[in-house]
Amino acid sequence: MSRYPDNQSQMGANVMPERFTETLHAASEPGWSQAVGHRFVNELFAGTLPDAVMARYLIQDHRFLDSFLMLLGAVLASADTFEARLRFGRFIGMVSSEENTYFLRAFEALGVTEDRRAADPDTQPTAGFKAIMREAAETRSYAAALSVLVVTEWLYLDWASRAPTPPNNFVHADWISLHDNPGFRAFVDFLRAELDRIGPAQADLCRDFFGRAVALELSFFEAAYADRT
Amino acid sequence: MSRYPDNQSQMGANVMPERFTETLHAASEPGWSQAVGHRFVNELFAGTLPDAVMARYLIQDHRFLDSFLMLLGAVLASADTFEARLRFGRFIGMVSSEENTYFLRAFEALGVTEDRRAADPDTQPTAGFKAIMREAAETRSYAAALSVLVVTEWLYLDWASRAPTPPNNFVHADWISLHDNPGFRAFVDFLRAELDRIGPAQADLCRDFFGRAVALELSFFEAAYADRT
Repeated sequence: MSRYPDNQSQMGANVMPERFTETLHAASEPGWSQAVGHRFVNELFAGTLPDAVMARYLIQDHRFLDSFLMLLGAVLASADTFEARLRFGRFIGMVSSEENTYFLRAFEALGVTEDRRAADPDTQPTAGFKAIMREAAETRSYAAALSVLVVTEWLYLDWASRAPTPPNNFVHADWISLHDNPGFRAFVDFLRAELDRIGPAQADLCRDFFGRAVALELSFFEAAYADRT
Repeated sequence: MSRYPDNQSQMGANVMPERFTETLHAASEPGWSQAVGHRFVNELFAGTLPDAVMARYLIQDHRFLDSFLMLLGAVLASADTFEARLRFGRFIGMVSSEENTYFLRAFEALGVTEDRRAADPDTQPTAGFKAIMREAAETRSYAAALSVLVVTEWLYLDWASRAPTPPNNFVHADWISLHDNPGFRAFVDFLRAELDRIGPAQADLCRDFFGRAVALELSFFEAAYADRT
């Protein structure tokens, strides 16, 4: 694709080959670390996150679950091995059941009604996530879709795995454990291995989607603190 | 089959407008009834199905699970409501876990090795199913993909729900119960309601995919009895 000329020769001749996802991750700094160490994460760990912030955040996060499932559908359709398809299929099942149920339980606990959920407008990062997920799905490129997915899952594992003792509040504790458990960790390992395998042949495409997704994750945390109401 | 009149004109002139999926079903006769009442089904119910036939059948059926997941991915990406996406997502999870595990347990019980599975060539109906699933996925039309899916699931519910007492052999009993349980029945109701809703606007496309899929189901049962080895 002429839009994404590959330019691997930049890497030089005597550099140790790094994992491709490690290269993408390094190129996304300092945004990655700013997201992982965001005030939202620290307050979540400390149990001091205001309900109003958590509610705003979860409303937006649930809002793009639909686009996320669309992206996962594109990945399921475009993955190049049966084994990969089975893993994505099981992950899709989890997102459509346990993860969706978490949102509904959390909304109830936070007193967030369906009307409120419908009334809150999309924040700019939510609109951006919806757009990048649809864009990646529409490329029909496994590499493009994977690049977005590696960010949304790996970055979440990265912050969640830094949690000290779990908070008492299930709304906080379950949001952490959904993103830091053995199954999820194995899934992120699998995602990274897939992108390490197929990404280098479309390196610029991957870098573009990966970088934009990291920037969106950071601004998504920011938006939870923007008082829009 | 009396339950499914195979000719709409028999129903008389002053009948209420029929469900779209009922019309597709009627147009697919007598193939549909021949599939649902096939010798394979009757022998499965009676516990007299030879292991060699069941093995040949399951090898082929598992063979196109990959294309089936690809089709489900296309459906997940193209469905037009969040609620539909959640239902497909949960079904995809089931196919990628319980259903895939059934195959592996059955292969073990039947003494079917991985080498044997790899060595058996695709039968013509298997190749046909793979092709129609990829074709439907590639249209990116929710209606096309749904038309194939309604056949593969509804036709299986139709025969499985006629089973008398379950056979003792788990290979037979679980293949029936995978296609006749409350969750599966609700899923087929949902699939039909979706196709009733969106199919009429693309009726010819739906009729084409539906009709070809029914013919493939019949020839798929036939192929299990063709001694190819």
